Amino acid sequence: MASEIQVLKFGGTSVKSIGRIEHVAGIIAECARTQKVIVVVSAMGDTTDYLIKLAKGCSATPDKRELDALLSTGEQMSISLLAIRLRDIGVAARSLTGGQVGIFTESIHTNARIVDIRKEALAKHLEDNDVLVVAGFQGVTPDGDITTLGRGGSDTTAVALAAAVNAAGCDIYTDVDGIFTTDPNLVNNASLLRTVSYGEVLEMARLGAKVLHPRAVELARQYGVKLRVRNTFKPEDKGTLIVGGDMEIFRAISSVAVDKDQAAVAIMDVPDQPGIAGKVTGALAKRNIGIDMIVQSFHPSTDHNSITFTVQSDALDETVAVLNEIKDALGARVVQVDGDCAKVSLIGAGLVEQPDIPSRMFTTLGENKINIKMISTSEMKISCIVSRAAADQAARLIHEAFELHLLQKENAAKV
Amino acid sequence: MASEIQVLKFGGTSVKSIGRIEHVAGIIAECARTQKVIVVVSAMGDTTDYLIKLAKGCSATPDKRELDALLSTGEQMSISLLAIRLRDIGVAARSLTGGQVGIFTESIHTNARIVDIRKEALAKHLEDNDVLVVAGFQGVTPDGDITTLGRGGSDTTAVALAAAVNAAGCDIYTDVDGIFTTDPNLVNNASLLRTVSYGEVLEMARLGAKVLHPRAVELARQYGVKLRVRNTFKPEDKGTLIVGGDMEIFRAISSVAVDKDQAAVAIMDVPDQPGIAGKVTGALAKRNIGIDMIVQSFHPSTDHNSITFTVQSDALDETVAVLNEIKDALGARVVQVDGDCAKVSLIGAGLVEQPDIPSRMFTTLGENKINIKMISTSEMKISCIVSRAAADQAARLIHEAFELHLLQKENAAKV
Repeated sequence: MASEIQVLKFGGTSVKSIGRIEHVAGIIAECARTQKVIVVVSAMGDTTDYLIKLAKGCSATPDKRELDALLSTGEQMSISLLAIRLRDIGVAARSLTGGQVGIFTESIHTNARIVDIRKEALAKHLEDNDVLVVAGFQGVTPDGDITTLGRGGSDTTAVALAAAVNAAGCDIYTDVDGIFTTDPNLVNNASLLRTVSYGEVLEMARLGAKVLHPRAVELARQYGVKLRVRNTFKPEDKGTLIVGGDMEIFRAISSVAVDKDQAAVAIMDVPDQPGIAGKVTGALAKRNIGIDMIVQSFHPSTDHNSITFTVQSDALDETVAVLNEIKDALGARVVQVDGDCAKVSLIGAGLVEQPDIPSRMFTTLGENKINIKMISTSEMKISCIVSRAAADQAARLIHEAFELHLLQKENAAKV
Repeated sequence: MASEIQVLKFGGTSVKSIGRIEHVAGIIAECARTQKVIVVVSAMGDTTDYLIKLAKGCSATPDKRELDALLSTGEQMSISLLAIRLRDIGVAARSLTGGQVGIFTESIHTNARIVDIRKEALAKHLEDNDVLVVAGFQGVTPDGDITTLGRGGSDTTAVALAAAVNAAGCDIYTDVDGIFTTDPNLVNNASLLRTVSYGEVLEMARLGAKVLHPRAVELARQYGVKLRVRNTFKPEDKGTLIVGGDMEIFRAISSVAVDKDQAAVAIMDVPDQPGIAGKVTGALAKRNIGIDMIVQSFHPSTDHNSITFTVQSDALDETVAVLNEIKDALGARVVQVDGDCAKVSLIGAGLVEQPDIPSRMFTTLGENKINIKMISTSEMKISCIVSRAAADQAARLIHEAFELHLLQKENAAKV
């Protein structure tokens, strides 16, 4: 397909009222003057939460297939309203549900992955219309059942469509200016990053910076989709461009992220045998529970291990239930839970080359009497679990210690 | 297909809240104990009106394709919520949109007619589930565009599905006890009819008794679908059964109907030439405006006719616009409008055999100083146009004059 196609994605706050839909239609109309445009939208404002509340009113554990059918109406509402507005201002727009555009997924309800996009159908629709307004977050199984893509679903839809049509770019419009060195609500001199690498933004996303969902970023990296995060309410600003090669990165550290939805679970006194960690993660994976940090410690005096790991808070109850089921088979004695957890992370493509960075981070926290419960590092990030009450302060201290507020100046000079 | 399938249809007021959805699920579960069940539901309460309001916020004249995509979400919400509730109470239910069940329609948006129902898909779904919860009011075109069926759409969906699966019966659940001799809000001793013929109910529906839409009744008659109108909130009551043969009818008169959404339009001084009425109705039909009563009167002294007819009030403006366009071509001089119209009708399969009935009706109105503006009769009804303010009184007087309040006793004796 021709590469003069632009993908624009608007989140729920960008379309939460008729007034905002009108505003967004203006941005799209401007873009459509020179390019074919595929627009991906989320449900209006709090619609999804409202629908979930209705479902919970009908059942404590709503059937997942039916929940998907219900939730998908949220996006169907916003695409048709936006298309109505676009046509009203003279733009040849057409709304398409996930099924209509041919976004095929697995049959895993509420958390399906995209398997295929019917490119020919998409090409035909693009030929017939200037703007396609596609429902984010949803797809269909080959049997025609409606599925939803789970968290970050609309970003993923946008990137997948951009990849399918080999789009010139994929702009993710949101209610912030772009990607910052940390949450600007937390640190008032946080710096806006003009460019950031897939790898860095992936770490940020995984670590709880709610800018872009990791699924979407991974997909963008895989297909080389040029992603840009920008502000719906400042369409003249360019926001943050997520660039390809990590080689372009000139910063050791790019950001500090906080994730307060963490819980730690420990299985104590497991015999020191190979395969225990695999059994634990395997049992959890069967229930679709992903674990995050995992620390295994050996107590030589007892020949026993303890395995501690973190999960998202909302998966805590199910995690504990799974562990209690397999506890005896593992020969473990106790399952301990620490619900008071937050993860504070330092992210940067150059971390690996500067070994003093971890110690500066830990020292900063220690000097300020913030207790570190767990530590986990990778090539591009250092994460510490602290108590939830200390998380914001920890992030501020680290942001200050590494002088991240100066990054904006640096950006301005170099870009 | 086996004939032990029952179709149940619930209107918007029957599913307007979670509490009502729970109640309705109970009725369905009871029915599903002995039969396969297809449930057709409308959108919850005022959802459709709310969606139309949103659309009007985006455009004074919303694109019809997009409006259909928007409106169809209302039913999709109610089917998935009802299926969630049914599964919660242990009923093997599955929701299906018009597209998923294979209800194919014309490509006429906002007012499509059903062309075909994919019976094999329906049979497969019925094999796999005990209860199918199908979205009323909607279908898809062969291209996959979502359509809506217009007024009475959900009743039509229910009857069409009943015909497709050769159902044992089709119960239309609503918020009244069944079909009455007239509107019980108007005449407090109105009688509930235990049985009524397709023909009678068709006349009632056409004449503004908002019980069942004529499209649905016509379809039921065509395919011999056994229709029953019953009260969602008195599920133990049997309501009104609409029976096949008019030969079974033992009543001359069955009901009085009032329709206050009428307007009369007159084209004055049209030359007395063949084909004028055809041209007028043809021009209106092109805009999808149906006319109701039509009276043509000849004035020999001038060699000119005047044609007077009634339309639904909401079509009045467009009707006048059309007439003004064609006025000169017809050689007509004036278009007159009378917006203060209501239609009061007497309905009964035996009317034709009792010629005294019309005169008794007109005399009743005359004696009570109610002016009759127009009269129209058919084999099964006599309609009078009166001023809107007189309509309710006219209906009460006629109901009393023909002693329709005694019909319930008669029903009880004979059924």
